[in-house]
Amino acid sequence: MLGSTHGTFTTDLRARVVACGESPRTTVHGVTAAPGDQDVSGRPLHAAVPDLDRFFRPESVAVVGASDTEGRPNTGITRQLLAWAERVGARIVPVHPTRTSVFGIDCVPSVGALTEPVDLAVLLVADPLPVIEELAETKVKFAVAFASGFAETGAAGAAAQERLAAAVRRSGLRLLGPNTNLNAFERFREDLDGPAVALITQSGHQGRPVFTLQELGVRLSHWAPTGNEADLETSDFISYFAGRPEVGAIACYVEGLKDGRSFLLAADRAARHGVPVVAVKVGRTETGARTAASHTGKLTGADQVVDAAMRQFGVIRVDGLDQLQDTATLLARARRPRADGVVVYSISGGTGAHFADLATEAGLQLPTLPQAKQDELHQWIPEYLSVANPVDNGGHPVGDWRGRKIIDAILADPSVGVLICPITGPFPPMSDKLAQDLVDAAEATDKLVCVVWGSPVGTEDAYRTTLLGSSRVATFRTFANCIGAVKAYLDHHRFTTSYRSPFDEAPRTPSPSFRKAQALMRPGRRLSEHAAKQLLRAYGIRVPREQLVTSAAAAVRAAGLVGYPVVMKASGAQLAHKTELGLVKVGLTSASQVRDAYRELTDIARFESIDLDGILVCQMVGRGVEMVVGVTRDDLFGPTVTVGLGGVLVEVLDDTAVRVPPFGESEARSMLAELRGRALLDGVRGAPPADVDALVEVVLRVQRMALELDGDLAELDINPLMVLPRGQGAVALDALAVCR
Amino acid sequence: MLGSTHGTFTTDLRARVVACGESPRTTVHGVTAAPGDQDVSGRPLHAAVPDLDRFFRPESVAVVGASDTEGRPNTGITRQLLAWAERVGARIVPVHPTRTSVFGIDCVPSVGALTEPVDLAVLLVADPLPVIEELAETKVKFAVAFASGFAETGAAGAAAQERLAAAVRRSGLRLLGPNTNLNAFERFREDLDGPAVALITQSGHQGRPVFTLQELGVRLSHWAPTGNEADLETSDFISYFAGRPEVGAIACYVEGLKDGRSFLLAADRAARHGVPVVAVKVGRTETGARTAASHTGKLTGADQVVDAAMRQFGVIRVDGLDQLQDTATLLARARRPRADGVVVYSISGGTGAHFADLATEAGLQLPTLPQAKQDELHQWIPEYLSVANPVDNGGHPVGDWRGRKIIDAILADPSVGVLICPITGPFPPMSDKLAQDLVDAAEATDKLVCVVWGSPVGTEDAYRTTLLGSSRVATFRTFANCIGAVKAYLDHHRFTTSYRSPFDEAPRTPSPSFRKAQALMRPGRRLSEHAAKQLLRAYGIRVPREQLVTSAAAAVRAAGLVGYPVVMKASGAQLAHKTELGLVKVGLTSASQVRDAYRELTDIARFESIDLDGILVCQMVGRGVEMVVGVTRDDLFGPTVTVGLGGVLVEVLDDTAVRVPPFGESEARSMLAELRGRALLDGVRGAPPADVDALVEVVLRVQRMALELDGDLAELDINPLMVLPRGQGAVALDALAVCR
Repeated sequence: MLGSTHGTFTTDLRARVVACGESPRTTVHGVTAAPGDQDVSGRPLHAAVPDLDRFFRPESVAVVGASDTEGRPNTGITRQLLAWAERVGARIVPVHPTRTSVFGIDCVPSVGALTEPVDLAVLLVADPLPVIEELAETKVKFAVAFASGFAETGAAGAAAQERLAAAVRRSGLRLLGPNTNLNAFERFREDLDGPAVALITQSGHQGRPVFTLQELGVRLSHWAPTGNEADLETSDFISYFAGRPEVGAIACYVEGLKDGRSFLLAADRAARHGVPVVAVKVGRTETGARTAASHTGKLTGADQVVDAAMRQFGVIRVDGLDQLQDTATLLARARRPRADGVVVYSISGGTGAHFADLATEAGLQLPTLPQAKQDELHQWIPEYLSVANPVDNGGHPVGDWRGRKIIDAILADPSVGVLICPITGPFPPMSDKLAQDLVDAAEATDKLVCVVWGSPVGTEDAYRTTLLGSSRVATFRTFANCIGAVKAYLDHHRFTTSYRSPFDEAPRTPSPSFRKAQALMRPGRRLSEHAAKQLLRAYGIRVPREQLVTSAAAAVRAAGLVGYPVVMKASGAQLAHKTELGLVKVGLTSASQVRDAYRELTDIARFESIDLDGILVCQMVGRGVEMVVGVTRDDLFGPTVTVGLGGVLVEVLDDTAVRVPPFGESEARSMLAELRGRALLDGVRGAPPADVDALVEVVLRVQRMALELDGDLAELDINPLMVLPRGQGAVALDALAVCR
Repeated sequence: MLGSTHGTFTTDLRARVVACGESPRTTVHGVTAAPGDQDVSGRPLHAAVPDLDRFFRPESVAVVGASDTEGRPNTGITRQLLAWAERVGARIVPVHPTRTSVFGIDCVPSVGALTEPVDLAVLLVADPLPVIEELAETKVKFAVAFASGFAETGAAGAAAQERLAAAVRRSGLRLLGPNTNLNAFERFREDLDGPAVALITQSGHQGRPVFTLQELGVRLSHWAPTGNEADLETSDFISYFAGRPEVGAIACYVEGLKDGRSFLLAADRAARHGVPVVAVKVGRTETGARTAASHTGKLTGADQVVDAAMRQFGVIRVDGLDQLQDTATLLARARRPRADGVVVYSISGGTGAHFADLATEAGLQLPTLPQAKQDELHQWIPEYLSVANPVDNGGHPVGDWRGRKIIDAILADPSVGVLICPITGPFPPMSDKLAQDLVDAAEATDKLVCVVWGSPVGTEDAYRTTLLGSSRVATFRTFANCIGAVKAYLDHHRFTTSYRSPFDEAPRTPSPSFRKAQALMRPGRRLSEHAAKQLLRAYGIRVPREQLVTSAAAAVRAAGLVGYPVVMKASGAQLAHKTELGLVKVGLTSASQVRDAYRELTDIARFESIDLDGILVCQMVGRGVEMVVGVTRDDLFGPTVTVGLGGVLVEVLDDTAVRVPPFGESEARSMLAELRGRALLDGVRGAPPADVDALVEVVLRVQRMALELDGDLAELDINPLMVLPRGQGAVALDALAVCR
C-alpha cells in the first residue's frame, strides 16, 4: 500500500468511501476487502459479487404505491406483478397509506408495518428516499425504484441520486434503479433447455429484442434493467451471472459505466469462468455519449479506452441489437471449437464466393480441404464444381441421400471446426431438405453448424420449424451477423483458453523506484524536462547522459563529460514547443559551438520571456524509430497507458494504442500490433528492425509508474522515445510530466 | 483519334473487334459509334443500350431441348416456361429432333424448321453453339443458353465460350448466358404499384432474396441472371433498365465485370437518368476474387479500383444481400429529399441515444431542432425528456392523440428531411398505435419516414400488416441497415443533383503535348529519369531545371546554369533505389563539390556495374509536402491515376487514392480528401499549407497523359512530387516511366 492518503482510489470509489464515512482500507460499499486484496494504487483486485438469488426469485414482494385504479400507470405495474407472482408462486403485499386493499389483497399502511419478512420491495412512489430510510429498519434485502428525475436530469437530480445512494448504503439493502422497471419479472419461458442468455440493459426498450428471442426458442434466464445504478450496477450483474450455472452468455446494453474498475473486475470474473460477455456500448461519437448521459446520467468514457478495456478482458463489443442477439445466442449455445477452420457449403458457387469473400475479410480462416477430402466429396458432387472450400454442390445433390453424406464428410475433416451453409432464399424443393439435413448433422456432431436463412420473409417452415426448432444449429438471417458471431465465438475460446488474469500479477506493493520518484513530485505543477527524465530514470527507463548547466563554461565542461557530439536544449518547467522556438541545438562538436549555442539559447529565452532553470547538455543518441509512450487519466478507468508512433504519424494520423492497467507483456506487445504504422518497427527502406523488446519494457515500466504514482501523476508523455536497432535499447529523448 | 494502331481500345473491345473482322471505328459489337463518339484513347463515350423489351416480354418462345420425361431437369424447365407462357399469354414452340410433341404441344425438329417468327429461343442443350449457328439464319432476336462448362471451368472452357461469343456476334442475335437459367421468367407480382426494383445477378441463388421481397410488397420489374456473359452483360442491363420508366432502382449482384468501360458508361447513363444502382461486388479479398472467377469465369478487378470506379459514377456498393434489398427498396421508392437533416424519434431515450450514436458515426446529420420546435414538442412530451434530437417521448404520448401530433410537428420542421423511428421490440399497447401513426403521417408528407422494426420475430401485425402494408414508410429490421440505406439515399440525391458526366468533357483529340511526348517513347523499355521528366515537361508538369552531363567539367558548367546549390544524381534507364546506393548528392554549393560529386557518382556506378547515360545536375527545390502521383493499368479499366502521400506514409501505410479516367477537377480534389494523412497538405507543425491547386493540376495533367499515351505508356510514377507552399507550385523531383 502507498503511504499517500490521496489518489489511492478512483474518483468514484473515493467519493463513495467519503460518503460512507468508512476507511477505504476495510470496506468498499459493503464488500469486505482484505488489505492484500488491493493493488498498489489501492484499487480492488477481485470483483464484489452480490448474492442476487433472492432478488431474481423473491418469495414475497412488497409493492409500495400499489394501485388498482384504472388508468394509473401503477395499476398496470401492480397487475403485472400479480400475474408474475401467480406464475412463480410468490406472495404480493400491497403497501398503501390509505387503502385497505388493492385487487382484493389486504394492504399494509407502510413498509414499517410489514409483519412478515419480505425479500423485495418494489417502490412505485415518486420519491423513494423516505421509503428506503424506512426499509433500513426492516429485513428487506432488495428494492427496485421506478422513479425518474435523478442523475439523468442534471446536477440537482444527480445530488438527489447521491442522497438516495447514501441512504441505500446506510440501509444495508441493495437497490435496483432508480429510473428502472419490472423487466426482471417478465414472463420467461420455462420450457427451454440448455445454456441461457442473461440480459443486462440500461434501457428497457433496448432489451426488448433479446427478450423476444424466447419466441424463437432462445432460452433467457434473467433480465436486469439497471436504470440509473444508484447502487447495483451492470458490473454487479455480470459478476453474479458469471457464477450461475444456467448462464451460457451475458448480453449487455450499456450506455455508461458507473466505475471502470468494477467493470474490469466483473469482466475478469466472467473470463475466469469462461462465460462470454457480449455488449453494445453507446458512445462511439460525441452525440451518442451526450445523449446517453442525458438518459441515465452516467459517464460513457473515452471510447478508445472503453474499447481497449473491453478487448483486454474479453468483452465482445457489438454495435447493433441484432448482433447482440445473434452473438450472445451463439456463444451461449455452442460448444468449445475443435478447430478454427471454417468451411462454407452452399448450393451455389456464387453464394459460396460471396460468403467466402466477406468471411475472409473479417478474419475467418477458410482452410483448403485436403485432396483426399475433395476426392471424397466429388463422389457426390460433379467434378466441375469446386469443393476445395467453399464447397459448391451445384444444387442437385441436396435433393437426395447425397446431401447428408456431404455435410457429414465435411464435418469429419479435422481441420474443420465450423460448417456454415448460407441459404440465400427459400427454394423449397432444395432448401427444405437441406435445412433438415443440416439439423440432423448438427445433432450428430459436436462441431458448430451454422445456417444463414437469407429470405427476408422468415415465415417459411424450413426456417421457423426445422432450423429454429433445433438449438444445435445456429441460425442467422444475414451473412454479416453470422460471420461476426462465428468470429466472436472462435476469438472468445482462443481468449479464454490462454487467459491469465492480470489482476493476479498486479503489483500490490510499491517498487524501490517509488520513493525516489515521489521525491521528484511537485504537486499541481509541471516538471522540467530534466526532472521528468529523472523520474523516468527512477523507473529504470534509459535517458541520454545529460547535465543541467547555468553557464557557458559549465556547458563546455558538461559536454566533455557527456561526450561529443552533444545536443543542447533550453530547460524550464513551462517550456513547450522547444523545437519551433529554436531552443534545441543538435550535433554540436566543439567547445566553441557549445559556447555559441549556450549564448544563443539563453538569448532566445530572454527575448521570448521564458523562465529557464538552465540549459541541458545531452548525449546525442543514434537513429532509431521515434515513438511516444504516455500516461493519461480517463474519467472511468483512471490512469491509462498509451503508445504510438512518433513524428508525423502521431501528429497527422493519431496512430496510437491504449491500455487500461493492469496488463501484462503480451498485451503490451499487442499494442504495437495495433499501430497502423507498425511496419516501421520491423524496418523499412533498409532500416534495421527496432528493439521492440526494449520498447515493450518501457511500456511496462510506464504502467508501473502510472499505478504507483497514481495519486501524484496527472500526465506523463515521453516524446520521442527513440527505439534503437534491435539489441540496443530505447532512450527517452524528451519527457513531460504533470503532477496532480 | 490517335494515329497509332494499337492501344486505341481496351483489350476486351479490341478482341471483340478483331473477332468481328470489323473496323473499330464504325461498329463495336453491333452498336454504331460515330467517330466523334470516342475519347482520345479510342474508348466509347456513350453506353450501348440494347433494346431488350422483347427479351423480357417475348410473345413466342422456342424451347430447344424441351422435354416432358419425368425426372429430367429439362422437364422442370419446360414446365416452368409453360406456366409462365400461360400467365403472360405467350406462345411456346418445343424444338426437338425426334419427338412429335411435348406436354401435348407439337414439336418442330429444329430451329431451322420454325415456320413463324419467334422472339426468344431457350437453349436447354448441352452444346448451344450449333443452335446459335442455325439461329443466325432465322429472325430470332434473343437466346438464353443454360449450358455450363464454359469460362468458369478454365482455359478450355474459356476458348469454347469465345467460339460461342463469336458465333453470337456473327448471328446478329443477343444471347443471355451461357451458364444461366430462367429467373427472368419467374412469377412476378403484377398487383404492386409504384417504382420497382430491377434485378441483375451473376448467380441465381444470390438474387433469390431480392426476388422474395415481393412477398413483403416490394415491386420487382425484372430479373436478369447474366451467367457467364458471353454476350449480354451486366452493363447492358443497367443501361436498359436506366431508361425504363417503371424502374426506380437497379439492384445488382456482381462477381466480375466483362469490361470496365462499358460498366462506367452504364453507370453514367443511370446517373444521368437519376436511377440509383446498388451493387454487391465480390472481390474484397483474394479468396473472394478467386472463388468468384471460378464461378462465372470473369475478372473481379483490383478491388480498390472497382470501389473507386463505383463511387465516381454513383454506384452504391454494399456488402450484404440484406443491405442490397433494403437500400435498393428505399432508393426505388423514396422521393427526392427536401433536406439532409435526420431526426430520430423514439419511445425510449436509450434507443434514441443508441441510434443517434450509430447514425452520427455513419455520417448522417442530426440537426438540433430549433428552440421553438422543441417548445412545441414539449406541449405533448414531458419537460424532463430531451426533444432536441433525438426526440424521446418517454412512451406514454404515443398511446393517444399526441402521438400523431408529435410526428407531424417534427416533419414540419424545414431542417428535417428524414424521420426515423426505431422500435426495438413489439410492445403492442404502444408499438401498434405508433406504427399506425407513422404510416398515416408518411402518407400525408413528401418527406421520408423510416421505421426500424427490431423484433427478431417479424410476424407481428404492426410489422406485417401496418408497416409493410404501406409503401410510403420505409421499414427496416436493423439499425445498421436503416442507417446505411438512408445515408445512401441522401448521398445518391446529392450526387445526381450535382452530376456532370465526365464523358461529356473527356478529351476527344490529342493535345499539342502528345506529339512531343510520343517522340520520347521507347516501346517496351523503361525511360531514364531525365527522359521521364521530359515527358512530364511535355505535359506542362514542372520539373527542376536540370542538365544531363557526361563530364565533370560539363557538370560544373551545368551547375552554373542551373544555379547553386545543386543536386546531382546518376541517370540511367535501369536505375532504381538511387538513394540507397548513394547515387544522389544534395546541397552542393561550389564547383569543387560538383567535381567531387561527379567523380564519386561515376565511381559508385562503375563499382556497382550500373550503366549510366550521364549525371543529372539539378536545381535544388525548396521544402514542401512529398507526394506520389502515378499511372497504373488495371485489367478491367485500363489506365488508372493514383495519388498518395510520399515518404514513410506511402511506404508504410499505402496511403493512396485511385481514380479511373475520365474524371474532372472535383474528383481529383476528392482524391486528396480520401488520404488519411491529408492534414499534411494543410500544414502541420507550423508548416505552411501546400499548393493543393498545383497538385490537382498535376493529377489532371497526368490523367491526360494516361489517356493520350494509353497505347504507349505502361506505367508512370512521379515520386516524389514536391508540393511547395501555396502559390509556389509543385515540382516532380523524380519520375519513372515504362513504355508498352
